Amino acid sequence: MSKRVINFYAGPAGLPLPALERAQKEMLDFENTGMSVMEISHRSKEYNAVHDEAISLVKELLHVPENFHVLLMQGGGNLQFAMLPMNVLHSGRKADYIITGNWSKKALAEGGTVAGEAARRIASTEEDAFRRLPSPGEIKVNPDAAYVHFCSNNTIFGTQWKDFPRTGGIPLAADMSSDMMWRPFDIKPFGIIYAGAQKNLGPSGLVVAIIRDDFLEACADNLPKMLKYKLYVEKNSLFNTPPCFSIYILRNVLAYNKSIGGLEAIEKANREKGALLYGVMDKHPDFYKGYVTVKEDRSFMNVTFNLPSAELDAAFVAEAGKNGMVGLKGYRTLGGIRVSMYNAVTVEQIRTLVSFMEEFIRTRG
Amino acid sequence: MSKRVINFYAGPAGLPLPALERAQKEMLDFENTGMSVMEISHRSKEYNAVHDEAISLVKELLHVPENFHVLLMQGGGNLQFAMLPMNVLHSGRKADYIITGNWSKKALAEGGTVAGEAARRIASTEEDAFRRLPSPGEIKVNPDAAYVHFCSNNTIFGTQWKDFPRTGGIPLAADMSSDMMWRPFDIKPFGIIYAGAQKNLGPSGLVVAIIRDDFLEACADNLPKMLKYKLYVEKNSLFNTPPCFSIYILRNVLAYNKSIGGLEAIEKANREKGALLYGVMDKHPDFYKGYVTVKEDRSFMNVTFNLPSAELDAAFVAEAGKNGMVGLKGYRTLGGIRVSMYNAVTVEQIRTLVSFMEEFIRTRG
Repeated sequence: MSKRVINFYAGPAGLPLPALERAQKEMLDFENTGMSVMEISHRSKEYNAVHDEAISLVKELLHVPENFHVLLMQGGGNLQFAMLPMNVLHSGRKADYIITGNWSKKALAEGGTVAGEAARRIASTEEDAFRRLPSPGEIKVNPDAAYVHFCSNNTIFGTQWKDFPRTGGIPLAADMSSDMMWRPFDIKPFGIIYAGAQKNLGPSGLVVAIIRDDFLEACADNLPKMLKYKLYVEKNSLFNTPPCFSIYILRNVLAYNKSIGGLEAIEKANREKGALLYGVMDKHPDFYKGYVTVKEDRSFMNVTFNLPSAELDAAFVAEAGKNGMVGLKGYRTLGGIRVSMYNAVTVEQIRTLVSFMEEFIRTRG
Repeated sequence: MSKRVINFYAGPAGLPLPALERAQKEMLDFENTGMSVMEISHRSKEYNAVHDEAISLVKELLHVPENFHVLLMQGGGNLQFAMLPMNVLHSGRKADYIITGNWSKKALAEGGTVAGEAARRIASTEEDAFRRLPSPGEIKVNPDAAYVHFCSNNTIFGTQWKDFPRTGGIPLAADMSSDMMWRPFDIKPFGIIYAGAQKNLGPSGLVVAIIRDDFLEACADNLPKMLKYKLYVEKNSLFNTPPCFSIYILRNVLAYNKSIGGLEAIEKANREKGALLYGVMDKHPDFYKGYVTVKEDRSFMNVTFNLPSAELDAAFVAEAGKNGMVGLKGYRTLGGIRVSMYNAVTVEQIRTLVSFMEEFIRTRG
């Protein structure tokens, strides 16, 4: 067997090794059932224990208050872009969207498909090529908005909201696909958060959402069942067969996260990783040229930079590859380098990358 | 490790052991990438090879003609119940539904939610408690129907269409969730077939659909992206991150199916399993009382019967359990016994069950 690589893919991305080892060990015989967890009825007590534990761990790790519900869905963030307005923007209700990158643009576009003019763009940093987030003064929330939508971390450009938009009590709605659970945070101002699992949480094919009671209450009733938030809450996300194996891996990942000290410990590691990587960039700003122009907006999940030439970008990716580091090529429209360092990437692995970067500048700088 | 059991669950259900062993072996290191297939970008060449192979194998095993497309989606059969009318029943188009059990009823209900009166019930065997399928004379297709929908196998009641409804050229649309690939069949009269993977094909969280060119052409354009059939075809089901691991297991299952002789060999085994199990029932019709009243309508996937008393039903399930056979309890509204024997259940396993049934009647009959 070849060595495990250091995985900097933007998603699907690396998962904690113990979560995968557990799955490997149990693949043919899950908890003495004589079956894989993939082969067991979703109505069985064995599967239901996994399902409930996954939901409990989401609540526990994020300190979710009692008036919120955890939903497990399918279809990725992209289906949420449509489900959110389908559920909320009925009876003439309107919503505000803040645009900070490709994903928030897609969310607004789907809002337009579903609800037309009721989905409104209220701020955007597109004219700055998404190199920064809007400042508080640039965000003018409409008082009639049912929610204010934003994307908490912009995978492509490498920006991340540390303080969330102030809305004067209007519920926030966030796509947290690429930074869900990177740290604990106060969920109370949110009507809903949702995340495709395939960055920080587990495999693709699973969406984890958390919705507030009053936000749920105002959701539509006359929707197809699989598109209706209320049904997921009512049925504990077991109306139909859920993506059982993906939920099982989510459970494994979250159980591991708990075992290492929860999100408090994970945030500490993520901040250390950020300090190391942005440290080497700030030390050599003309060689490792950060894409993001406002330091406070830089992401702890996806770090974007360009080397002085496309040739050097390519050499960097190739040499890193020879050193067991993969997934560093920047997004196709931006070029350069992108380091995705989700929760499963360790401080030690970032130290390895940073050493490589110091060595690379010594030999190529 | 405990012994593997004989898995008669109705779904999620047993998968071929070699498909799982392959997944186990590659769990930490997929094809020398140093990563799990769950951890690899869905834009990587390694994942794309799996994705394309899964699609090719669907086409190859089912002998799908060139004018059909294979789609890989999420949300189960339940989301298809809504997506089908959302895509097809625009501009005043209407459709006919044949009701033979819970799933076809749900499909019609979602049709009603999406398209109101345009989704029409044209035949039903509900008054016979779904113990049979409609005869050809009971099915009156409306000449203006855009499709005629039916469910090819009724998991709960144990009926299965061997000859499909005759529609005089109007496209068939079928939920084949519980018998997709049980045998080869002529797909040409179908506009679309779809199947949740978790019975015959792989893990839950994945839908395999096959759609005909002209049927696709007539589908709606102004839909949310994840609900639009045309986008899946246009993007080879890679518009967003697909459920990669589920598709990987699908690939493993189909590659195994090919290795044992394709659907021709699988049909032979399924017919042998049916002959064995219905054989013992027909030998003891007062003890193993089949739920289905018309022999030609009996399913090769789900076999339903009642013993003379609820006590005997319970004893049967319990003693079978002691003999390593699980999942035999009938659906909650029907009681009795249900034997789900999807493709992964072997002839040898049915022999074991049949021996047990002979022994059970000897001691308890």
